[in-house]
Amino acid sequence: MDSPFILVNLKTYQEGMGHNARRIAVAAETVSRESGAVIGIAPIFTEIRPLSQHHAIPVYAQHIDAITPGAHTGHILPEAVRSAGASGTLINHSERRLTLADIDACIQAARRLNLESVVCTNNDATSAAAAALKPDYVAVEPPELIGSGVSVSKADPGVIERSVNAVRAVNPDVKVLTGAGIQSGECVKIAIDLGTCGVLLASSVVKAEDPEAVLRDLVSLL
Amino acid sequence: MDSPFILVNLKTYQEGMGHNARRIAVAAETVSRESGAVIGIAPIFTEIRPLSQHHAIPVYAQHIDAITPGAHTGHILPEAVRSAGASGTLINHSERRLTLADIDACIQAARRLNLESVVCTNNDATSAAAAALKPDYVAVEPPELIGSGVSVSKADPGVIERSVNAVRAVNPDVKVLTGAGIQSGECVKIAIDLGTCGVLLASSVVKAEDPEAVLRDLVSLL
Amino acid sequence: MDSPFILVNLKTYQEGMGHNARRIAVAAETVSRESGAVIGIAPIFTEIRPLSQHHAIPVYAQHIDAITPGAHTGHILPEAVRSAGASGTLINHSERRLTLADIDACIQAARRLNLESVVCTNNDATSAAAAALKPDYVAVEPPELIGSGVSVSKADPGVIERSVNAVRAVNPDVKVLTGAGIQSGECVKIAIDLGTCGVLLASSVVKAEDPEAVLRDLVSLL
Amino acid sequence: MDSPFILVNLKTYQEGMGHNARRIAVAAETVSRESGAVIGIAPIFTEIRPLSQHHAIPVYAQHIDAITPGAHTGHILPEAVRSAGASGTLINHSERRLTLADIDACIQAARRLNLESVVCTNNDATSAAAAALKPDYVAVEPPELIGSGVSVSKADPGVIERSVNAVRAVNPDVKVLTGAGIQSGECVKIAIDLGTCGVLLASSVVKAEDPEAVLRDLVSLL
Repeated sequence: MDSPFILVNLKTYQEGMGHNARRIAVAAETVSRESGAVIGIAPIFTEIRPLSQHHAIPVYAQHIDAITPGAHTGHILPEAVRSAGASGTLINHSERRLTLADIDACIQAARRLNLESVVCTNNDATSAAAAALKPDYVAVEPPELIGSGVSVSKADPGVIERSVNAVRAVNPDVKVLTGAGIQSGECVKIAIDLGTCGVLLASSVVKAEDPEAVLRDLVSLL
Repeated sequence: MDSPFILVNLKTYQEGMGHNARRIAVAAETVSRESGAVIGIAPIFTEIRPLSQHHAIPVYAQHIDAITPGAHTGHILPEAVRSAGASGTLINHSERRLTLADIDACIQAARRLNLESVVCTNNDATSAAAAALKPDYVAVEPPELIGSGVSVSKADPGVIERSVNAVRAVNPDVKVLTGAGIQSGECVKIAIDLGTCGVLLASSVVKAEDPEAVLRDLVSLL
Repeated sequence: MDSPFILVNLKTYQEGMGHNARRIAVAAETVSRESGAVIGIAPIFTEIRPLSQHHAIPVYAQHIDAITPGAHTGHILPEAVRSAGASGTLINHSERRLTLADIDACIQAARRLNLESVVCTNNDATSAAAAALKPDYVAVEPPELIGSGVSVSKADPGVIERSVNAVRAVNPDVKVLTGAGIQSGECVKIAIDLGTCGVLLASSVVKAEDPEAVLRDLVSLL
Repeated sequence: MDSPFILVNLKTYQEGMGHNARRIAVAAETVSRESGAVIGIAPIFTEIRPLSQHHAIPVYAQHIDAITPGAHTGHILPEAVRSAGASGTLINHSERRLTLADIDACIQAARRLNLESVVCTNNDATSAAAAALKPDYVAVEPPELIGSGVSVSKADPGVIERSVNAVRAVNPDVKVLTGAGIQSGECVKIAIDLGTCGVLLASSVVKAEDPEAVLRDLVSLL
């Protein structure tokens, strides 16, 4: 089995920028080294470059646009996040939804550029749909639980289980992540036991007094 | 086998409004009766009601929004197109793309309201993805051929074939329509031979001098 | 002075569709006739036609798209709402915001088609900006008060006063409406006293047990 | 009079990224020093930081989102472009249009963060509207001329003249830039003579064999 994957979305939280971001990156490096888990971070675009230069962890973009180099002012060029050092990207996060055609184009761009693609979805039907597009990961996040402090692992394990089954039926090579409300090692353990290979989370690490302690707890039952 | 299905999108063409729309509706009724093919039309929203009241053909909305009754000014409520007489709806047309989550919600709304759902897609990967959401139809329309006067049946039959196979692999209950550039009975025959159950088209009927003659030609080789 | 103008946005409320919409239209006719106030309604698109055919009140579209006849599936063609019987349209409602360029294009389309244009704005700065585009009306609606049950007339009369002044400084021909939270004759009186020529409102009429009684109260202090 | 201002939008052109961007930045520094003109560049987001660290020219963001720190995955936080070193930002570029309410919020954010705001508009009416929001600059760019190789200075000086007058009538403190199709010193001279204080341009510098020569030509008649 692959190492479990913990992906921390720094969003545009004050607590996830600048020196706060560096502190979370250091914590991720430390806990990753100790535990063997892969811990990645997804910072704001302008911090992809310094974080990927100075820290030995995978850095993800939070979004890419379905464009190629050209006249696209103010958009996120996949080539640009790659050359800034990103090793992967979120696609279709619930706070940045894309059209179906654009999700497909973004996954294709990520594949071409050797960026890991993590497509966010909201239920088992959209998870199956996303799997048909052959991303590396589908991250299932029931929107009502995002940022809720209520873990999907506990509140609605059924949606995770159905998503794992639906994704496998469409394309068994696509890995599944559990998102929404993840906050403890117990949540992560349930997520893994349900057949997903890790978690996508944000506030419980980013807004923690001690992000390193939270990360250490997240991997504690693996 | 089901009767072949010809769905005419009137878009917001001048030639598809008012008395022009009524003329196309009459032509559709006539040719449908003669041929046994099912011929539907998708007019602008404000003409769903009069066309469905006065013509014995299926009337489709061109779009619905992923909303339920409530505070949504300026949106297209699925319940409203249903009560205006629509028997189905396009979803995610290339000129009105939706997010993956909204496509799923629109298909669910259509199912709940007993509206036939026709989800437009741009290639075989997105066709497979759409099929995972269980609409009634997927209409494959390579965007570069829409309105081009070049029929997908002839220019790129491979995309239709791959879409039929991809859709079947995901959900064999979902029917496939061929779109983009359809203009003659030969195009329709190829579309049927490739395993789709009909066509979605627009300008070749709507902008025709004699829509009835075009419709008659479309069904002539069935 | 012009007659005061009461514009009732039916949104996509269940209580503003079908026979409910007809009942509100009848109430608007009655109270308008009694009071001399102009009372218009803005129903869902599919009901513009029947409501404008059967009721002697101005019917408004809730939105138009910045398009001309052509290949625009699923969009709201200004010509279509005109020919369905609308005499005006909301533009840029807070639930259907438009780009600046599209607001301008919609106002121009409305002028060309002889549709009254009511541009919704959220504060005095955007009211002044909208006035520069020369619509018939600017309707100021602080978003936090929409549907709140708290009237802008009482909660924040300053925003109305500043908007009236800002609009006048840019273009004194543009009339101002007061929106957000309007629910009684007192609110309407304050709105008029602040220099606006009427109100834009929704839930307090649409969701009322007795819309006619609410409308009668709204005009009672004029 | 202020120094003339030349703002070079690098868009997401291949020729405006990485070492190409650095070469344009060096050219801008050189020509700025020689001529006294202010020459700024607007690179992709991930290159704001390295370009502003290593080059003595103003660096602009191509876009900001109307958000404050918080849960906004994949968006452009104004604070983030500021802390990456940007001294200003484009707002509402024709390739990244915003709603009126968001343009207002972005200008307010820029003011709060001490970022120069350059709002792009498409005609004299929208220029006047933008001026009502009190940005530092309005850049008028008739969309049909962007990237056309046909200079607005020559093809349609009237739109520039009307925009200057319209902006002055609303707010004389707002400066105007001429955009779309600018490519030579003659274009820039006309732009200045028409009462604007500089130009916004892209392809003629970014895609030039020798950007420094083009920049030198642009300021040659000042």
